[in-house]
Amino acid sequence: MARAQFRFHHRLRVRWAEVDRQGIVFNGHYLAYFDVGITEYYRALGYPYPDGLARHGTDLFVRKAEIEYQAPAHYDDEIDLYVRVERLGRSSFDFRIEIFRTDDLLVSGKVIYVNADPVARKSAPLPEFLREAIQAFEHTAPAQAGVNRV
Amino acid sequence: MARAQFRFHHRLRVRWAEVDRQGIVFNGHYLAYFDVGITEYYRALGYPYPDGLARHGTDLFVRKAEIEYQAPAHYDDEIDLYVRVERLGRSSFDFRIEIFRTDDLLVSGKVIYVNADPVARKSAPLPEFLREAIQAFEHTAPAQAGVNRV
Amino acid sequence: MARAQFRFHHRLRVRWAEVDRQGIVFNGHYLAYFDVGITEYYRALGYPYPDGLARHGTDLFVRKAEIEYQAPAHYDDEIDLYVRVERLGRSSFDFRIEIFRTDDLLVSGKVIYVNADPVARKSAPLPEFLREAIQAFEHTAPAQAGVNRV
Amino acid sequence: MARAQFRFHHRLRVRWAEVDRQGIVFNGHYLAYFDVGITEYYRALGYPYPDGLARHGTDLFVRKAEIEYQAPAHYDDEIDLYVRVERLGRSSFDFRIEIFRTDDLLVSGKVIYVNADPVARKSAPLPEFLREAIQAFEHTAPAQAGVNRV
Repeated sequence: MARAQFRFHHRLRVRWAEVDRQGIVFNGHYLAYFDVGITEYYRALGYPYPDGLARHGTDLFVRKAEIEYQAPAHYDDEIDLYVRVERLGRSSFDFRIEIFRTDDLLVSGKVIYVNADPVARKSAPLPEFLREAIQAFEHTAPAQAGVNRV
Repeated sequence: MARAQFRFHHRLRVRWAEVDRQGIVFNGHYLAYFDVGITEYYRALGYPYPDGLARHGTDLFVRKAEIEYQAPAHYDDEIDLYVRVERLGRSSFDFRIEIFRTDDLLVSGKVIYVNADPVARKSAPLPEFLREAIQAFEHTAPAQAGVNRV
Repeated sequence: MARAQFRFHHRLRVRWAEVDRQGIVFNGHYLAYFDVGITEYYRALGYPYPDGLARHGTDLFVRKAEIEYQAPAHYDDEIDLYVRVERLGRSSFDFRIEIFRTDDLLVSGKVIYVNADPVARKSAPLPEFLREAIQAFEHTAPAQAGVNRV
Repeated sequence: MARAQFRFHHRLRVRWAEVDRQGIVFNGHYLAYFDVGITEYYRALGYPYPDGLARHGTDLFVRKAEIEYQAPAHYDDEIDLYVRVERLGRSSFDFRIEIFRTDDLLVSGKVIYVNADPVARKSAPLPEFLREAIQAFEHTAPAQAGVNRV
């Protein structure tokens, strides 16, 4: 996916504690990076997590994550987290995330969130305000955004 | 996949520092758990990482990871990491990992490793001793193991 | 302090994700190890944290930590966390922790906890059952334990 | 110590994965924050770690760390890491670090580094260029800086 398709990105710098004995970022830390990117995406959307989002008796939970490792990030690298919502379902939606160091794609992935009741863990429809905010932010009409059911 | 298909598992206990404000293990930490399970698998195989494995000028790198979150682990839970190699390619292979708390499947996933030159990052055939050790350990003939090319 | 002065220890194995580019455990992870040791100490005491402890409207918070690094732990090392309470105050108490690899002292430290109201963060006397359980566990009479006021 | 005594600070934002079930940053993560602050201090000094520093056959190792927890940082807080070198010894030196959220002191501490041979782990005099750079950066004459022997 071309970076031009992303409206949003956020930069961070790799920490010493995140780099392993091979001199590269440990594979699991990219999910913490993804989480930082998603946090900043919500802030850009105008609904910072959790106060802006989790106020309906429901909360967002990760259902699935996929990560592809093309090239490693190293200590002290500045990396750019590109984030977009690429699917909006009834109760779940997918983030697409790509991590670049300048023009090199290092890591890409997908994180699927589901809106659910935190106790019963039963899925619930996404709140309408969130659906609308994401659609407006991504400048995509519902049909183009590939709305489908989960 | 039934747990009976796994020859190997390893138990660990969830740490306080791994649990987030929702009271559940942060999604990224499961990749650290997967890594612990794979480490112990190599030990059971007789080739502890890295000294038993990375001695041919090549090393193993994660190419892809997939994680599905069925139910959360909580602080102080004892969880069992079930680990098996479910595909052996020419230069890469796939671990299947399932995490249970007693009989409940919490998280499952796949981690694909590639054998590569650490500097050029060019893939290289898996060392024969590793292929044979895994096939013997998994008690599967090459044909059944679904050997294919990467 | 001689290891004989400790009634309790707990073993763990260093994970790949905890080791940095120098090939040694990152300095901050020892506080996560200390926390594991203290968790297991509470379990040995008969009051697992938090259900056995934090049930009086108060909770335990770290006020201070000190760590001395004598020698590094490496990937896959098995290390032993020796834990004891070396001071019991009115509302706070001190854990002494020493980490050994077989007979080599690697890291030692102190963690001071205070019992406090989680909202007002005002300190409160240690619950009597906890004071008694620790004194019994450590086989030390109050005078010897150096009870003093915080 | 008044913040005016610090020439340097660096801002970061607390991540979701750093916050525990009590809703506060896990105590060990402050050492990772300290490390970020020290990394940025070296960059401001003109000697980014490790390439600018560890090029004499020696490297810097943490010998001791002390942390006092006055008040907790929460998820999404922006916090300022104030960093200064408060002691320059022959082979070791001390960082003083204070973490503020706007005007509230949350956590303060000290990290003592020693310059040493990585293999023999024998201490070695601090390189002269580093001593001079720190003294110039801190605007303190050697006598005032409290130079003493380790």
